[in-house]
Order: sequence, then structure tokens, then C-alpha cells
Amino acid sequence: MQRIGFIGLGIMGKPMARNLLRAGYPLVVHNRSRGAVDSLAAEGAQAASNPREVAEGSDVVITMLPDTPDVQSVALGADGILSGARPGLTHIDMSTILPQAGREVAAALAERGAEMLDAPVSGGPQGAAEGTLSIMVGGSRATFETCRPILEVMGRTIVYMGDHGAGHTAKLCNQVACVLNLLGVCEMLVLGGKAGLDLNRVIEAVGAGLGSSAIRTNHGPKMLARDFSPGFFVRLQQKDLRLALATAEELGVPLAGTALVQQLLRTLEAEGKGEQGTQALVRVIERLAGCEVKAE
Amino acid sequence: MQRIGFIGLGIMGKPMARNLLRAGYPLVVHNRSRGAVDSLAAEGAQAASNPREVAEGSDVVITMLPDTPDVQSVALGADGILSGARPGLTHIDMSTILPQAGREVAAALAERGAEMLDAPVSGGPQGAAEGTLSIMVGGSRATFETCRPILEVMGRTIVYMGDHGAGHTAKLCNQVACVLNLLGVCEMLVLGGKAGLDLNRVIEAVGAGLGSSAIRTNHGPKMLARDFSPGFFVRLQQKDLRLALATAEELGVPLAGTALVQQLLRTLEAEGKGEQGTQALVRVIERLAGCEVKAE
Amino acid sequence: MQRIGFIGLGIMGKPMARNLLRAGYPLVVHNRSRGAVDSLAAEGAQAASNPREVAEGSDVVITMLPDTPDVQSVALGADGILSGARPGLTHIDMSTILPQAGREVAAALAERGAEMLDAPVSGGPQGAAEGTLSIMVGGSRATFETCRPILEVMGRTIVYMGDHGAGHTAKLCNQVACVLNLLGVCEMLVLGGKAGLDLNRVIEAVGAGLGSSAIRTNHGPKMLARDFSPGFFVRLQQKDLRLALATAEELGVPLAGTALVQQLLRTLEAEGKGEQGTQALVRVIERLAGCEVKAE
Amino acid sequence: MQRIGFIGLGIMGKPMARNLLRAGYPLVVHNRSRGAVDSLAAEGAQAASNPREVAEGSDVVITMLPDTPDVQSVALGADGILSGARPGLTHIDMSTILPQAGREVAAALAERGAEMLDAPVSGGPQGAAEGTLSIMVGGSRATFETCRPILEVMGRTIVYMGDHGAGHTAKLCNQVACVLNLLGVCEMLVLGGKAGLDLNRVIEAVGAGLGSSAIRTNHGPKMLARDFSPGFFVRLQQKDLRLALATAEELGVPLAGTALVQQLLRTLEAEGKGEQGTQALVRVIERLAGCEVKAE
Repeated sequence: MQRIGFIGLGIMGKPMARNLLRAGYPLVVHNRSRGAVDSLAAEGAQAASNPREVAEGSDVVITMLPDTPDVQSVALGADGILSGARPGLTHIDMSTILPQAGREVAAALAERGAEMLDAPVSGGPQGAAEGTLSIMVGGSRATFETCRPILEVMGRTIVYMGDHGAGHTAKLCNQVACVLNLLGVCEMLVLGGKAGLDLNRVIEAVGAGLGSSAIRTNHGPKMLARDFSPGFFVRLQQKDLRLALATAEELGVPLAGTALVQQLLRTLEAEGKGEQGTQALVRVIERLAGCEVKAE
Repeated sequence: MQRIGFIGLGIMGKPMARNLLRAGYPLVVHNRSRGAVDSLAAEGAQAASNPREVAEGSDVVITMLPDTPDVQSVALGADGILSGARPGLTHIDMSTILPQAGREVAAALAERGAEMLDAPVSGGPQGAAEGTLSIMVGGSRATFETCRPILEVMGRTIVYMGDHGAGHTAKLCNQVACVLNLLGVCEMLVLGGKAGLDLNRVIEAVGAGLGSSAIRTNHGPKMLARDFSPGFFVRLQQKDLRLALATAEELGVPLAGTALVQQLLRTLEAEGKGEQGTQALVRVIERLAGCEVKAE
Repeated sequence: MQRIGFIGLGIMGKPMARNLLRAGYPLVVHNRSRGAVDSLAAEGAQAASNPREVAEGSDVVITMLPDTPDVQSVALGADGILSGARPGLTHIDMSTILPQAGREVAAALAERGAEMLDAPVSGGPQGAAEGTLSIMVGGSRATFETCRPILEVMGRTIVYMGDHGAGHTAKLCNQVACVLNLLGVCEMLVLGGKAGLDLNRVIEAVGAGLGSSAIRTNHGPKMLARDFSPGFFVRLQQKDLRLALATAEELGVPLAGTALVQQLLRTLEAEGKGEQGTQALVRVIERLAGCEVKAE
Repeated sequence: MQRIGFIGLGIMGKPMARNLLRAGYPLVVHNRSRGAVDSLAAEGAQAASNPREVAEGSDVVITMLPDTPDVQSVALGADGILSGARPGLTHIDMSTILPQAGREVAAALAERGAEMLDAPVSGGPQGAAEGTLSIMVGGSRATFETCRPILEVMGRTIVYMGDHGAGHTAKLCNQVACVLNLLGVCEMLVLGGKAGLDLNRVIEAVGAGLGSSAIRTNHGPKMLARDFSPGFFVRLQQKDLRLALATAEELGVPLAGTALVQQLLRTLEAEGKGEQGTQALVRVIERLAGCEVKAE
């Protein structure tokens, strides 16, 4: 059984690592703050003091980090994964970062004979805990097939997308669809709400037809319940949109709708609501309409 | 068994009427052009020469017409439903029209002791043929309960939304969500396509997470197959958006996202593509990006 | 000297009519409410009790009315201009209305041998009072030349635009440019304000370069002074945008920017600020940014 | 008379440097490519082989460079200005870059006792040649006053905006207003053009009222003449918008209109038209409308 290293034990990474441990994989972990390390160590993981040590003691190193510079630093920085890499090591980055940055890490590792997969996820903390994440994978197909059993511990839908960066790019495509579905639910509810409709019935009725979306099912009822807890942070959604729009810029792809949602979500950040769930977008649309949507 | 009148035997109305006939309802029909009348007459329906005659010979009159002025004319014009109305008659308007116009017809009928329901549908020609439409109903609850068996012949999800106009308004809410989901799929595919992803896999991967929507499932593959046949006409989608935005104007609801899609869809009308299916929106987004999305 | 009739003595029409009176034209006036009629009668105008009487007693009838249905009613309704029209009469409509509606009035008058010009104005109450309006004229060039001296009493820049409706259309084009310039000033000030710049200096610096606009000069300082008095009502600007977007719809012209401003301005209407000046748009942009722009 | 160094002799920098030379200032110049250096040397400037040498031989060093990394490299890199800085030296950066990056250069220079001004310009190659640029200045007021005579050789409108970074920020504000004015002219022309108006007259008529803008005056006629030569490159306008939106992101300012124009301009880049003038935006708006605007 492969020895797995896991770096980044946050709200997503910790339950993902735990699932690997429970599946019987020997696990060495590292995290910037100590608490999560201790907690997993108590469950049987071994602690490492830096990414280099993790790499030296593992066959496969998984990273689950907030943003592009974090991955660059953990992979390429002093005492980084690269400094502990050897032929045969595989680095699976499950963070959502710039595809181009992922490709650069892969190229640096390749010079040492190490492999890389980009394998960002969708599904949130609940999917991480239940091992039902959707995982989009880029890199060589052979490496993907080798690592598939590991990914299947963490996720239910595993889709091989293509070369290095293809996983990250697919994740950004997913976010583009997400935020426009989100805006659709917000505008629908504000229109219905101000017209005096029972919004639970609107959500129900729309669910049977072409207006339906996973956002409607998951976020619509939270909006009506005035539950703005995350879920997925506004702040991280904005980071993902920044990556999506930067990738679109590089490729020459205009995304007028996505850019509109990015600007509207910014209002939440301007108000210090970056740590709320993305369903709080409805508060911006409400503000523009001078009303509040809620269940009857 | 109630005698049913059916006015408006177009791409939606004809299969809906046929389902009522097959369910055993005595049916009298009227249509502006003669072909569909003859065809249903051959299946056992009785033909009437104008809406007044339909009303005089029915307990329940159903209308399925393109736009607000059509319903106003058929209901309130010379030889219209109103001129043949009597206490106990119910008019069910299943068209998508301005909620306010629907309320005015209801008020006019009420003066003659007749009832009205607004009951627009979602689900397209396929749903009409299969009797699986989603139906959103406004009007008195008692009338709704009386007519429910009739509606259940035509639809699978029947949601009572509230007073007169509530069905129409819910339908417009549905369209708002639809078109933003549609834009989300278009922007997702153009980003992924220009990045060189296999777009069938993008659609598959996104379907497992929060980016999923009924539009992704139904329209995404058509876009990749370059199949722009309707489904739902661009021209009618624009009509529905015009109604949604007019209702939003009346209520003081800004809908920046919906307004953006309306403008982008207009490009298709400017090019004479109003009779294509709404999935053709992707052609506008492609044009802005200088690329074409298609299956590998 | 031609006898002039003037219908519509509001915030614009009254000072325009007064300028004609002062220029020595015999004037017969009509208005829905009586106050303005009495006031002009005291200055030498003759009062008429309906548009027909105005037409019967004039060579040229000018209308200055809020919206399309007002012009249709005054021109074509019972006791309207048409009912008092004769060969040689000219109707100059200086309202901002749908070009198509203007063309229909012109056609109806032409059947009686009467002429029509559409001649909407830009410049606001101040331009009306000072006789410095900008006037965009549609209709036959010969009629335009005959009426030019009258228009020159009211305006300083008189541009012949072409056939019936061309004046109205040009006015709508003007409004499209106006509202995007307005949004430009708002976004500029909110960005500068939140960055801590002295906004008077921003307005000054921008005025020397390509960012300059008449809106910057006129509305920028009012925004900083928190002076939201009209000027030009939000409500009427929205009406003009509705006409512009309806005309664009008819012609198949997508106007994504204009549609965005229309939606943002709607927030003011939703808050009951429709009677403020259009510079109040900055309040919406401020709200989205969580700040307030003002002079130091 | 102060000795001036000038780094960056491109389409803007070269005529600016020449004006300083003609005004009698001793000038030492440096440029990445050699041609412009030789040309100015033939007019009396002295050539330096790197920014350090320029700094060592000057009292005031001016930079006029394309983007943020260029300024960072020239100021802070190997053989950069900083390496040749001494107490009393002043660096005036007239490039358009991220305000935050400018503040960081200023702080680095301050540690060596040197001063910095950020002084970006508006007015284009013509303003540079004629010495009529508009200049927005950030930094200490005393340094500004000392350098004012130098700036007055290059520009006509010199506005002191405040502390370090205030000049750069003001320039970004200017660009926000510019691009929305630009969109306004495009949408106005496409609406008028498709309505069949004579667009020269539209530009004339709008110029007299609140729809007027410097963009209308300068870019409108070029659009009608199908003259898409720069002027100001699409590519650089996009760079400036990227800086403006990044600054807005840092400050928590949503700019929905600016973001829309950025996306629409991207279509030009996607088509390889980044080296056209910004007036080419009209080609995108035309494409959406299926028409072409031009003079009659």
C-alpha cells in the first residue's frame, strides 16, 4: 500500500486525510498550524515538520491549499516538496489554483523524475467528510490510473480531463457555471418575492423544469431561511473567479456574465461578509431591489 | 366528465389537447389556422368556429397562445370567450403572458360569474407530448382543486402558487433562472473549449457538483453536437424575458443578469436565428471569443 | 407671424412657451392642469380648452408631453389635434416618445393635409429657460426650414436628422450615450473615493483628458455636494431608456451597457427616488461599494 | 538647471524627452532598444548603458514604461535606479502602473534619501509631441513644486492629487470614465446606424447636450471613417483596466460597468486586434448587432 503524505489540513483537507487514514493508508501529515496535525496524529498519522520531510517519507504527496502562491511555496520553496522529490514520487495537488502555475510545478518535478496530477474537487466540506467529492484530474493518464484508488477514497465522481492543468481548468469551468446558476436563483427569488409569491413553492415548481440547478436545490432554501453560513466562502469563490477570469484573459475569452457576478459578490467583501457562504449573494440582489426574500 | 374547450393548437397546444382527448374528455377545439383542427377532429374532437362557440359548448376552456395580445383578443375580443361566458365556466390560460393581463381577464370573467386559472407550463414539446409538463397555477384554490384532474392529464408536477397571476409570475421566475443557467453553460463551454479541454468530459464532471443544472444536461450536449433546432425558440424566450423584465420594472426589481442575457440573445434575432433553440446562445458567446465549441 | 399653439406646460414646456411669447408670437395654450395656463395667460397667451381648439386657432401646434400615450391621446384622441387639423397646419412634437408612434401620428395628420415634425430636445429646464436647448428634428426638410425660426427661439443647436421619427431616434441615441457617461462618472468617483483621493481634483484632472464628458462637468460636482435635486428625473430617464431599448429590440440591436444602467437606475425607483435627478445613480454604486463619495 | 535622466523612449517617451531637450535641459537617456537612444543623442542627449548610470548622472530620473514589472525592474533591479540613488535624487514615474507598486518603489528610494513622484499622463502621442499632456501627480507636495517646471514642459494640465500612489490611482479613475464613455458612443452609433440615421449628424447633435464626451469628439468620427489606427492601443487599455479592477478589488469596489467593457474589449484581443486603437470597440458592438456603422 502506498505511503501517502498530506499537506494542508483545513476545512477540506482534514476530513479528506482522515478518510485516507481510515482506508488503511500509512499517512504522514503537515500543516502550517499545529492543531489539525495533532488531531490526525492521535488517529494514527505521523507528523512531519515541513513539506520536504513529507515528500521524503511518502510515495504520493497530496496538497490541499488555499491559493496559487501557497502551492508554489509548498512545492517549490525552501524545504518544499521539490527538495525532497525523487523518481517515482507523485504529487497530487487538489487545491484550486491557476492552471499555468500547476503546469510549472509539474515541469519542475518532472526534472527530478517525479510526477504530478492536478485534481481539484467540488462538493464542499460535506463531500469531503463523506468521501463523495467530484474530482477533476489533469496529468498523465498512467499516473492517473495508478492513483485512482487513492482518489476513489476521497471522491465518488472521478473524471480524467487530460494533460497537466486540465483538472484545474475544468474546476474553473465548473465555477463559472456555478456562479451564474447562483445569480439565476437570486434574481428568480427577488422577482418572485417582490411579486408576493410563496418562495418555497417557487423553488419547488422551478425544480421540475429547465430552471432547475444544484444551486437551487442546495442554496435556495438556505437563502429563504436566512442561513448564510458556509458552505463555500464568498472569499474563496472570489479567488476562484479571479483565477477563472485570469485564465480567460490569457486565452482571450470574454466572460461578461461571470465578470458581472464577480463584481456583485465584491459587495459582500466590501461589507466584511467574505466569510459567509456564497448564497449571501442574494443579499446584494435584495439590496438593489429594496426587499428581503424569505420563507412565508 | 367535464366538457373541455381548447383554443390554440400549436406545437404545444396540439399534443396537450390530444392527451385530453385520449383521457376521454369530450373536446371542442378552435385554432386560427385550420390544419390542426382537422387533425384533432379526425381523432374525435368537435370543431368550433370561434372562441365564443368554444365557451358556449364547454365547462372548461383552455387557451395555449403565443403572447399577451393573443390571450386578450381570444378572451375579451369580438366573439371571444367572455361573450360566451356564463356562471360556472372556467377559463384556464396555459400561455405565458403578463401576470397583470391575466388578472384583468380574470376580473372581466368574474363579472359574468366565470372563473379563471393561469396555469403556464414548463417542459417543452416533449413534455407536452408525454404529459409530463410542470404546471404553475394561479387563481382560487377551490377552482384549482376542481380542475386538478384535468391538469394532471397534461402535467406531472402541478404546483398551486396563489391568487390570479401567481402562476404567470412563477413561470417568469422560472425563465429568469433558466436563462442564467443557460449563460453559465455557454461561458463554461467557451472557457473550457478554448483551453483545449474535452468538453464532453467538462459536462460530465460538472454534472456531479454544484455547477449542474437541467440546462447543462439538456442543452450542453446539443451545443457540442451543433444541434440548434428547437426545443424552445429564441424568439419565445425573448418574449418571456420581455414579460419578466416588464414585470420586474413594475415591481421595482433590478435584474442585471437577466437583462444581460436578453441583450446577448438579441444578437441571434438580429441574425434571423429567432427560430433556433435557445441553446444557440452559445453561438453569440463563441463569436465574442472567436472560437467554436464542439465535441472531440 | 405664425400663430403658435402650445400643449403641455410642465417644467420644460412652460419656459419654452414663454420664450415664444416674448419673441412676439401670438400664442394659444392648453394644459391638463390649469395653473400654468393662467400664468401664461397673464403674460398674454390665449387659453384653449382642448387640443382641438388649439389646432383650430394655430398655424403651428407644439406638444411637450411626458410619454408616448400622452402624445397619442392629445394628437389622435377625442378633441385632439387631428380633429382640428386642416391642410397647412404643422404639429411639432418636442416630447421624447417612441419613434414609431411619432411616425403614426405623422401619417394620420398627413391624411388631413397637415404636417408633422418630431423635435425632441436636450438641455433640461435651464436650457428651456435660456432658450439654449439642443433640438433634433425629423420630418420633411421643407417643413423643417419653415419652422426653423420658431425652433431657434427655443434652442441654440438645431440639427435636422432626416425623415419622420429621425428626431426621436436621435434623442434616444443621445440618452444611450448620456447614461453610460453617467455610469462612468459614478464608477470613477467611487473608485477614487474609496482610494482616498480628493474627488474635486479627480474631476478636475479627468476634465483635461479623454475621460471628460458633459456629465462629468454637470453632474460630478452635484454628486460630491450630495445634491440630488433634478435636473432630469430618474423616472423620465428610465422612460427614455425604456423607449431606447424598445427601439433597439425592434431593430435587433443589443445594448448590454444601456441595459445594465437601466437596471441599476431601477434601484432608485424601488426606493421611491424616481423624482431625484439622474446623478443619484451614484447612490446605487456607492451602496454596492459600501461608501459615500463627497467633497473634502 | 537640473540634469534630467529619461528611461523609456517609446511612442510616448521619445517625444516627451525631446521636449525636455528643446527646453534646454541637459538630458541623459536609456532605452532597451538602441534606435531611439541614437536618435535623441543626435539631438544632443547623452546615452547611458543602464538605469544606474542614468541615476548617477542626473538630478531627476523620469521613467515612461509599459507596465508594472517594467518599472519594478528598472527601479529596483540589478543596475537599477535604486542602485545609483543618492539623497536628493528624484524619480518621476510617468508610466501607468499599480498604485501599490509605485508606493513600494517610493519607499525603497526613501531609504536612500531619494524622492519619488508618480505622474502618469493622459493625452496620447499627440499630447506628448505637443507638450499638452494632462498629468496627475502623487508624492510629497514639496517635491511636486520643485519638479513642476519640468512637468510643465511636457504637459498643460498638471494636477497634484496627494500622496504616493495618488497620481496612479487618479489615472485609473480616468480610464474607468474613458471606457464607459467609449461604450456609450459605440452603443449610440449602433442604435442610430441600424435605425438609418446619418451618423455624422448624430455625433453633431449629441455634442451639443449632455451626451457629449471627449471620446465622442475624438473617437466617434474615426469609427465612422473606419479608422482603427491607434491612438491608444486596445492592449494597453486592457492593461490599464486590469490595474483599475485589481485596485478596485483590493479596495472592495464593485465596478460592473468597467468589467463589462473589459470583457467586450477582450474580443478584440481574441481576434488579434490588440494593436488597434480603442475605438475598435465599436467593431464588437457592431458584430453583436449584425451591422456596421459608417458615415453616409
